[in-house]
Amino acid sequence: MDIPTAEIVCLGNELLIGVTTNTNAVFLGRHLTKLGYEVRRVTCIRDDLKLATEFFLEVFERKPDLILISGGLGPTYDDIQLEVLSKATKLDLVENEVALKQIKKYYDKKKNAGLTKERRKMALMPTGAEVLQNYVGGAPSCYLNFVGIEIYCLPGVPTEMKDIFMRHILPRLNKKQNKKLYEKKFQIFQSIESQLAPFILEIKNKHGDLYVKSHPAYKDKQGIIIHISGLGEEAESEVDKAIEELQNLLRKNIPDIKMEPFVD
Amino acid sequence: MDIPTAEIVCLGNELLIGVTTNTNAVFLGRHLTKLGYEVRRVTCIRDDLKLATEFFLEVFERKPDLILISGGLGPTYDDIQLEVLSKATKLDLVENEVALKQIKKYYDKKKNAGLTKERRKMALMPTGAEVLQNYVGGAPSCYLNFVGIEIYCLPGVPTEMKDIFMRHILPRLNKKQNKKLYEKKFQIFQSIESQLAPFILEIKNKHGDLYVKSHPAYKDKQGIIIHISGLGEEAESEVDKAIEELQNLLRKNIPDIKMEPFVD
Repeated sequence: MDIPTAEIVCLGNELLIGVTTNTNAVFLGRHLTKLGYEVRRVTCIRDDLKLATEFFLEVFERKPDLILISGGLGPTYDDIQLEVLSKATKLDLVENEVALKQIKKYYDKKKNAGLTKERRKMALMPTGAEVLQNYVGGAPSCYLNFVGIEIYCLPGVPTEMKDIFMRHILPRLNKKQNKKLYEKKFQIFQSIESQLAPFILEIKNKHGDLYVKSHPAYKDKQGIIIHISGLGEEAESEVDKAIEELQNLLRKNIPDIKMEPFVD
Repeated sequence: MDIPTAEIVCLGNELLIGVTTNTNAVFLGRHLTKLGYEVRRVTCIRDDLKLATEFFLEVFERKPDLILISGGLGPTYDDIQLEVLSKATKLDLVENEVALKQIKKYYDKKKNAGLTKERRKMALMPTGAEVLQNYVGGAPSCYLNFVGIEIYCLPGVPTEMKDIFMRHILPRLNKKQNKKLYEKKFQIFQSIESQLAPFILEIKNKHGDLYVKSHPAYKDKQGIIIHISGLGEEAESEVDKAIEELQNLLRKNIPDIKMEPFVD
């Protein structure tokens, strides 16, 4: 079975001008990888209708199985995610009644209630979009299948994005027949990456289907983290074996090496 | 004068599988924006020779003025930044003597000294690359001018990347005649983005050259941050004026609004 591919797209000038650190990509990338997707690219693009539309035309040509988009669903003039998608897919932007009801209900509870023009705008979705309710914020999320590509449109605010992903998207992707990820990590002290490199390569060459990687200065921890993973149930014993082989190789060749299990 | 454009490229599976949060992009994006560049895209790509080479061919077609690349200069088998650049530019990968000397000097001080194959690999650079010394880690950085595009090749480890950027790259970019950024921010309480949206749009329409944006839930602060900026000395008075106009407009229309200056 081919490994399904995914792209993550984050829309918003704040990600390009260094105002916001892209924590959405790490959350989505982690989940997609565990679900068995190969995340091919994470791209941050500006709130610019022309540039963003050109960008999506390129993505569609690459034909990933899945696209997750975050950012640009809100009420302000530069929230243009769905307008961009409409242009790139040539699917008309229409007022979605399900979305409009959810928006009305959300703002009716607010002090300054009412369906203003800016709030109504959030119900404009490409024809055929399926609404995914946002239980945290005002902007509904949606799903679109375009030329066989599954597209999920998410808001950029992390609390809203995460709730929608966990509630609506994760259960759907979980049901797919992808081979899921199996992984193990361990931590090395008293050595440096360039000393470890030949042994890591030896194990990588022996287990071509596995991902074998060293991470220096990982998550502010000392030492080097070794990360080995593979897809599907058959990967479990192979990952365990590769870990054991690498540790034996290191112990033999670097006598004073210190290794410890690593848990995220 | 046209605004110079830039792209930031981050190479490394760890950014796509959700292991590492991309803090390099926020650091580089912030500096480039202040230096007057329009950062058009931030793209994270995998350590895959074919996919990464295809990606760079696309970037070259877009002809940004500047490309900053981080990640993939190290000694392991999957550190392929310069190999990818060599393929995409068709500039031969050759052993750079300046780089080799720096690498030798760096590892001579280590317990396990010597120029191993893996360390020597880090001196392989596209023909014509200018070496930028890495004072923090082992992998030298380099600069390349390819068909008029300025390309800086940086390591992915943040401490190394930042030191090289501040030491070698920032002073060079600072010398360019770009119009520098001028910006101001303030914070709003007792309101929500959809209520502010029409007033922000009014100010944006009045000051078309300025960037006028609201950020909800910004950096874990409460409320909404308003961010107004422009390029060049002539922007200074216009930004100040736009801030004043927006605050007056908000005070008039939302009587119980609370506003405070915001400092990062």
